[in-house]
Amino acid sequence: MNREIVLRLSKYRRLLQKLKIIGLEKVFSNNLGDALGVTPALVRKDFSHLKITGNKRGGYIIDDLIASINLILCKNHPLEIIVVGCGKIGTALMQHRGLAEDGIKVAAGFDIKPEKISKNSEIPILGIEELDSFIKNRQIKVGVISVPESMATSVFEKMVSAGITGFLNFSPVELKFNKDSQLFDNSNSCFINNINLAVEIENLFYYVNSRDKEEKQASN
Amino acid sequence: MNREIVLRLSKYRRLLQKLKIIGLEKVFSNNLGDALGVTPALVRKDFSHLKITGNKRGGYIIDDLIASINLILCKNHPLEIIVVGCGKIGTALMQHRGLAEDGIKVAAGFDIKPEKISKNSEIPILGIEELDSFIKNRQIKVGVISVPESMATSVFEKMVSAGITGFLNFSPVELKFNKDSQLFDNSNSCFINNINLAVEIENLFYYVNSRDKEEKQASN
Repeated sequence: MNREIVLRLSKYRRLLQKLKIIGLEKVFSNNLGDALGVTPALVRKDFSHLKITGNKRGGYIIDDLIASINLILCKNHPLEIIVVGCGKIGTALMQHRGLAEDGIKVAAGFDIKPEKISKNSEIPILGIEELDSFIKNRQIKVGVISVPESMATSVFEKMVSAGITGFLNFSPVELKFNKDSQLFDNSNSCFINNINLAVEIENLFYYVNSRDKEEKQASN
Repeated sequence: MNREIVLRLSKYRRLLQKLKIIGLEKVFSNNLGDALGVTPALVRKDFSHLKITGNKRGGYIIDDLIASINLILCKNHPLEIIVVGCGKIGTALMQHRGLAEDGIKVAAGFDIKPEKISKNSEIPILGIEELDSFIKNRQIKVGVISVPESMATSVFEKMVSAGITGFLNFSPVELKFNKDSQLFDNSNSCFINNINLAVEIENLFYYVNSRDKEEKQASN
């Protein structure tokens, strides 16, 4: 399944759980489409991947949909991650309520600065020298990188060699998996999601400004 | 231009500025492609939008590329944003060095909690009741939403009616622009980038786990 479908499944699951809490038992594709801003046809197509079909009169059974999506998204297993770089962004992420609410547990944070280390906090913050053994012992597969630019590549390489294969990268470096590098010979591939906040904001300015230009030209 | 091209232009610009600082004057499409993990052909195609062509021997002139991209990305104007919701994520973003380094200035933060208000700090934090007049007076066009789920929609509507048209949304609500709603009759459209951190992490788990499953099946 491609990334777009998987992201939508995550979003459907959230919505369905909210609807269930409110007391609903069934839902129509157009309700879900409205809430997510997509067409009902796309919702039905996505659900056909789950091999669940609704019926025109009653719609989809919410419990069945949730169970199927959980199975696909592996939500029945604990989702343990680590956060490397406990600056502002890293700490915000570690304490982000949204993660815990979604069953995602931050197993530990890692930092290079001795004053940040706190082994006994609710989410322990460990020194970077413990990164390799922690990942291996706990079999962590997914990690967040929130270190400064100058450290991003070396942290990434350390994490790959310890066994991390899924990366959410907030550093300004565009991390990528180089199949030809000897560094990566133990691993088939990695999944890297680079989120550069400055780039995302610049992108919004581009659209906002191009619309303003168009409007000015139209009114001349 | 579509979102993917605009995002890449932002990334080329960053790279080019770094190369310039190092002392380079020219660059080849394959160098930029390597750094970004895209093909040289795609780099050349992107640059053809800038109406700048390189030559096979010397490559592209870095200064020319930077100037053209700056013009397209409106980087010659100040990029002022506001951040609504000064919790962990909002505060991390306000203090994120990466933004200032890229010429993006947080004009103010807004929060509903009186204890968060600090009008005289470097980046002032104001009460939500000042949101409307601030946006209008300063003609702010781009805003970040980092409020809890229950407040996201009402904050979004307030920002739209004050004139914000570009949104970076970290709340777990999938915000969308409803053309048919009377609420939006003053505005042609909005650009909304929803970043749900829990969904992004779930997405990584999906890929990591599906690869593990494939490997287990292959070894059976």
